Amino acid sequence: MEFQKTPLHRSGLFSSMMDQRCSEKKLKNVILLIGDGMGFSYTTGLRYFNNDSVKALMVPTIFDRHFVGTQSTYSLDPESNITDSAAAGTALATGYKTYNGAIGVNIHGQSVPTVLEYAKYRGKSTGLVGTSQINHATLAAFAAHNESREQYNKIADDYFDERLNGQLKIDVMLGGGKSYFCREDRHLAEEFMKNDYGYVTSLWELVANKNERVLGLFAPVELPKQIDRVPAVPSLAQMTKAAIQRLQQNPKGFFLLVEGSQIDWAGHENDIVGAMSEVKDFEAAYQEAVHFALDREDTLVIATADHSTGGMSIDRDDHYKWNPGVIKAVTATPRVIADRLHRTKDIGTLKNDISFSLDDEDLQLLRTTLEMTADDTHQALISIINHHSSTGWTTKGHTGEDVPVYACGLCSHLFSGKIENSDIANILFQIID
Amino acid sequence: MEFQKTPLHRSGLFSSMMDQRCSEKKLKNVILLIGDGMGFSYTTGLRYFNNDSVKALMVPTIFDRHFVGTQSTYSLDPESNITDSAAAGTALATGYKTYNGAIGVNIHGQSVPTVLEYAKYRGKSTGLVGTSQINHATLAAFAAHNESREQYNKIADDYFDERLNGQLKIDVMLGGGKSYFCREDRHLAEEFMKNDYGYVTSLWELVANKNERVLGLFAPVELPKQIDRVPAVPSLAQMTKAAIQRLQQNPKGFFLLVEGSQIDWAGHENDIVGAMSEVKDFEAAYQEAVHFALDREDTLVIATADHSTGGMSIDRDDHYKWNPGVIKAVTATPRVIADRLHRTKDIGTLKNDISFSLDDEDLQLLRTTLEMTADDTHQALISIINHHSSTGWTTKGHTGEDVPVYACGLCSHLFSGKIENSDIANILFQIID
Repeated sequence: MEFQKTPLHRSGLFSSMMDQRCSEKKLKNVILLIGDGMGFSYTTGLRYFNNDSVKALMVPTIFDRHFVGTQSTYSLDPESNITDSAAAGTALATGYKTYNGAIGVNIHGQSVPTVLEYAKYRGKSTGLVGTSQINHATLAAFAAHNESREQYNKIADDYFDERLNGQLKIDVMLGGGKSYFCREDRHLAEEFMKNDYGYVTSLWELVANKNERVLGLFAPVELPKQIDRVPAVPSLAQMTKAAIQRLQQNPKGFFLLVEGSQIDWAGHENDIVGAMSEVKDFEAAYQEAVHFALDREDTLVIATADHSTGGMSIDRDDHYKWNPGVIKAVTATPRVIADRLHRTKDIGTLKNDISFSLDDEDLQLLRTTLEMTADDTHQALISIINHHSSTGWTTKGHTGEDVPVYACGLCSHLFSGKIENSDIANILFQIID
Repeated sequence: MEFQKTPLHRSGLFSSMMDQRCSEKKLKNVILLIGDGMGFSYTTGLRYFNNDSVKALMVPTIFDRHFVGTQSTYSLDPESNITDSAAAGTALATGYKTYNGAIGVNIHGQSVPTVLEYAKYRGKSTGLVGTSQINHATLAAFAAHNESREQYNKIADDYFDERLNGQLKIDVMLGGGKSYFCREDRHLAEEFMKNDYGYVTSLWELVANKNERVLGLFAPVELPKQIDRVPAVPSLAQMTKAAIQRLQQNPKGFFLLVEGSQIDWAGHENDIVGAMSEVKDFEAAYQEAVHFALDREDTLVIATADHSTGGMSIDRDDHYKWNPGVIKAVTATPRVIADRLHRTKDIGTLKNDISFSLDDEDLQLLRTTLEMTADDTHQALISIINHHSSTGWTTKGHTGEDVPVYACGLCSHLFSGKIENSDIANILFQIID
């Protein structure tokens, strides 16, 4: 794989923006955080969620303070003009817009270099952190090359088998996906261990482990959503902190990708409780990254989304009052509450999980679904919470609206204005030292 | 009314941003354009609409090239945390967030100065241009003071009766609203004419008129949407051009407010044909403003929205393909098509207005509604077009997501990042010369 500085789609603009400050100081570390599915309705929702009432100006979120621009997300798919996470991840990772489903390959299916690989090629350390399985589309697009996102085992294999100058290319991997890395046909975790990687499967092990290179797999597939998480499972912020602690030991710096993977998954379920849980988790991870970058002059932190999910809207049905209080009054995702209800078959236990007032109609609906499946109860709970919080949705899939870009630290101004998702990689290729 | 420089909510940030370039040169002219309801889904939709297919990178819109930031739109209403156009207009005009329905008054119902009034106080000329009646909420918030947006007649009276140093305060008024200005109890158009205003009611009269001050009312209430407009009715761009021609004659400069009023109205109807028609009209008006500012060093152009409307999403129902071709294949708003169909009662005439393929099911639905009311046919057409274009909606009202801010010209960088809607007025109060 050859590393050439890929031409910028907006190179004219870029060269004039590449000012003294950015070119004289060396960009040592880059932390890129992707809130999967985190469109403007999610980040605006976070501001409402963080403010108890609107009697005065809302307190800005950390994202508000670092807002620099937007990017368009469309892929170059022959059948579709709304991106999936694989195509968007590939654009963000490589600078190439491609077809939906593509992992680190261009529209012709050819492997193209990623910014993570480029950082490793420049002698830096690299990390992948997420709350899905770590071989899922967005994360995979930065460190593997496959014509299809569905090839989970092959993508996991790539993480070990694809070498750069004979070296393993990802130093820190934290997230879910044990079932893909510890398989009957191949035990990748052991292969990593033989190459001096620590292997950990709980927060306690992660904290205790002192290896500079580490594989942490905290669930067979995805991690539980933050609101459902048990103490042994690290939060996205804890994984981010653990990754930075290790990666910063490299005197040449590092590239770290952090994905808030399940903002999107909650969006696909039209589950506002899960969505806010995951946005909060992502916010804390961003704070962790910013905390590291704050007193340094050699680090860039970027947070963005790959697309928006669900057509989520702050308010619906001409109500003119979005009610985050309802969301805060739910202590687990509707999926978990539904499963619990189907174990107890006792509607009275709901009050442990939901402290806003349910209508008689809501209770009747839930009682009816208790005679049906847990999925039916799950759907009923989602519908009830969306109704009471006044949250709107138009799809179980993705939507095409531009998404926000937040940045701070060295060279952060280069990401301002309206850019393409592919520009993020193209700019990173230019400025990573 | 006293004009004091109102304190900036983010004054610390502002003073550091108020750089050499902006403070040394004098800001003579300000053109503020408000796309009512024009959230990110509308401006992203415009980019899709302008690009025939996604086989290569989409051509940026003029807005893309001038994107500087976002603003939050929430009002300070005791009952509602989603703004209406009156409260948002008042925040944009005065720097005060207020309750829904308020026109140029704060949360206590007290009149507060607007940037239009401040410009007039500084000796500049002023203008209001829109496609609704010119005494409608957003426009009114810049030039009248009333506890309720519903007081249309009183607001129209304000435009004549409220004086600044004995002077009439709006020099150019172009839009709809004849029925409010030429009433049985009062003929405001005549009163303006007695004060040396031209009074025009068609594009031809507007073009022929040479008065520096002019009242142009081109419809009893709102103008037809651009796609339905007849040649005698000027477009928003034509009105903007006519306003600038007059206002620029003042050596002290001008403040011009231009509202794309009916983007919002189409959103309220969940009518994507009308919405795209009005966004295109607004885009052309913005181009007109930028064209004026381009070769000057004394003019600021800002375009933004007051809120988003309808919870509109680019794609819906897990389809992954938004189809602007369907929208382009419709030659009038569904309202106009429905009225025509109810006159002819002949489904065969549809082909004059709709050139995408209708399903048998669509035709059957339309035939059924022909036995009902024109409103039913209107709703059916909207539903059919939304289905075929894959456009999602969640409400007939407004939603709370942040909206884009576009700016070019002198001091445009001051509006970058994430700001409050009220910051726009607060910054303007500081920089208008």
